[in-house]
Amino acid sequence: MDIGGQLREMRSRRPLVHQITNFVVMNETANATLALGALPVMAHAPEEVAEMVAMAGALVLNIGTLSAPWIEAMVLAGRAASEHGVPVVLDPVGAGATAFRTATARRLLDEVAVTVVRANAGEMAALVDVRAQMRGVESMDALDAGDLATQVARRYGVVAAVTGPVDHVASTDRVVAIANGDPRLATITGTGCVASALTGCFLAVAPSPLEGAVAALVALGVAGEDAAVGAPGPGTFQVRLFDALAGLDPDTLDERARLA
Amino acid sequence: MDIGGQLREMRSRRPLVHQITNFVVMNETANATLALGALPVMAHAPEEVAEMVAMAGALVLNIGTLSAPWIEAMVLAGRAASEHGVPVVLDPVGAGATAFRTATARRLLDEVAVTVVRANAGEMAALVDVRAQMRGVESMDALDAGDLATQVARRYGVVAAVTGPVDHVASTDRVVAIANGDPRLATITGTGCVASALTGCFLAVAPSPLEGAVAALVALGVAGEDAAVGAPGPGTFQVRLFDALAGLDPDTLDERARLA
Amino acid sequence: MDIGGQLREMRSRRPLVHQITNFVVMNETANATLALGALPVMAHAPEEVAEMVAMAGALVLNIGTLSAPWIEAMVLAGRAASEHGVPVVLDPVGAGATAFRTATARRLLDEVAVTVVRANAGEMAALVDVRAQMRGVESMDALDAGDLATQVARRYGVVAAVTGPVDHVASTDRVVAIANGDPRLATITGTGCVASALTGCFLAVAPSPLEGAVAALVALGVAGEDAAVGAPGPGTFQVRLFDALAGLDPDTLDERARLA
Repeated sequence: MDIGGQLREMRSRRPLVHQITNFVVMNETANATLALGALPVMAHAPEEVAEMVAMAGALVLNIGTLSAPWIEAMVLAGRAASEHGVPVVLDPVGAGATAFRTATARRLLDEVAVTVVRANAGEMAALVDVRAQMRGVESMDALDAGDLATQVARRYGVVAAVTGPVDHVASTDRVVAIANGDPRLATITGTGCVASALTGCFLAVAPSPLEGAVAALVALGVAGEDAAVGAPGPGTFQVRLFDALAGLDPDTLDERARLA
Repeated sequence: MDIGGQLREMRSRRPLVHQITNFVVMNETANATLALGALPVMAHAPEEVAEMVAMAGALVLNIGTLSAPWIEAMVLAGRAASEHGVPVVLDPVGAGATAFRTATARRLLDEVAVTVVRANAGEMAALVDVRAQMRGVESMDALDAGDLATQVARRYGVVAAVTGPVDHVASTDRVVAIANGDPRLATITGTGCVASALTGCFLAVAPSPLEGAVAALVALGVAGEDAAVGAPGPGTFQVRLFDALAGLDPDTLDERARLA
Repeated sequence: MDIGGQLREMRSRRPLVHQITNFVVMNETANATLALGALPVMAHAPEEVAEMVAMAGALVLNIGTLSAPWIEAMVLAGRAASEHGVPVVLDPVGAGATAFRTATARRLLDEVAVTVVRANAGEMAALVDVRAQMRGVESMDALDAGDLATQVARRYGVVAAVTGPVDHVASTDRVVAIANGDPRLATITGTGCVASALTGCFLAVAPSPLEGAVAALVALGVAGEDAAVGAPGPGTFQVRLFDALAGLDPDTLDERARLA
């Protein structure tokens, strides 16, 4: 897997990444997208989402602060993405926490040709009826994440990326574990949403969805490791995370990747 | 009052704090909630607010960028909170600035069993027909804040927390003044909203609403004092505020509290 | 042109700057407004925008995450601004990228007495049917920016501020070029939106719209130069930008302005 090559390619092409995401993280995912090397655009009006996504290298759908009009925009954008061959990332934030979120995540999986689902274990479990403890949107649970990723991959025909202390990315017939990262990534809001945004950035250039999803999690994990060095707390860590994403070196990324 | 004990308890329990708040501060209040030690969740869809708040340790309603659909969500969530015994914080941002904000704040006080109102003096005055100068959402006025807090507490049967250079928290029969803080807290947007979010965090574990509200303002004030040390300007101050919230030491918090 | 004097006057008067802007940048433009020395207020409900803008020193309309209800609020607020003699800044984010954005920008120019349009070259070109390449909201193109600004100024009877590596501000009969700034301003999201917000701050005190628009771009450019010193990446740069805005010295601002 050539992760550094994907990063180099992205920074050269600067793909537009269309994000229909939640209010909490928009500034953060836009800055992470720019820091990595792609161009973010946020647009949710039904009047324009199809036109916008046609220009994009990837579409990211994130239900973190969902409401009925935004869901309709996600469906419209997702369908237009499929028509134009644009890969789609779904971040089912809070699936399992409320019936509305679970149903919306499943509806998007049914009505949109999703390429990659990126979620934590609790959210991912809710997509396949695995019972899981869910407390808020920051929580994790103790399921075997690799099995869970494979179940979701097979059930929906997607690549499934379960993030946690160790990340697991599965296609229908392969699982890659990624041990990069730092516990401080769990001390700030929006880390999962950033992972999903970066997945969109890589999908725009990746040779395959699995390789793109793995590259995104390696990039975020390595940046998290760099940002954590000497950070006195979560505020400083968050700021340095953008510095670290911008400073990622394609030449060393594959050496630093901790894959299994 | 055992403020350190409340903080220790919160970090141990990690309550979910459901926030229906404004677009300006969502990232900031989510990160402040995490830094203090609780778990934030933002959800405003009428389809899910009642289900979400039932899992929460507290609900925070903030009208900083209000609109009709969001107000309905606040009412739904607020009523569900009461049914489940979940304490409610109201932040009437900009009450007094427009008739719509004043009316909305009063409607929420009428239709929801609010536990604590957290506001600046101008906003608080608007809740009890005290005439006050209002310029934007960052302004203060010169009323006697302790009297004002008491008036609001008695009129609505709530705990009222008036923040300013000195904060005043009143129940119907008691007023506590808090002299912690730093003038730099007024140089960044969302400090009041953060105060309200942290009040939600403490209410989830506090022995009484007054003690929870006092603990939140002590915690924010002490963190502000720590963040101000050597900060070259408001950008750095804001970042360090999250570091300082995460670094709050339960063992020294009561010594550092400047109560009167 | 007395830029330092405008800044001194603004910090003394602290005008309220009403911003109806996009979800990505609200925290950032609010903090930039405060750091410069004015007071931000965000309000988009049709029930209150007219009342809010009547108290304001300027109104900023930004279509970065537009939708039909927000556009109606912008029209209402813009008309009320005109009735009260409040200057209006329009930021046509993404004009040219989708038909909806182009049409909305033009509708606002038709229905609201806009004082200053602040945009990048691609967006500005879309307002006068100049064909331009558009990729996302962060992109630029190579048109002659001074001519373009003059065309927009004459077509709509506004001051037009085209930002880029060199900024150009035009009234119907004058063009000022501003060479302040740093390439790092293009590495974070929302720089253009901040430029528009700061333009609103200066319009509230400026002797003329052109002088206000120039002052805003000089202030942001100089702050960008200060923020860039030693910044290891875009995260740190963004934080220092707020420090630098707050630290702008009215006594040296005119010396540091690189006008042509």
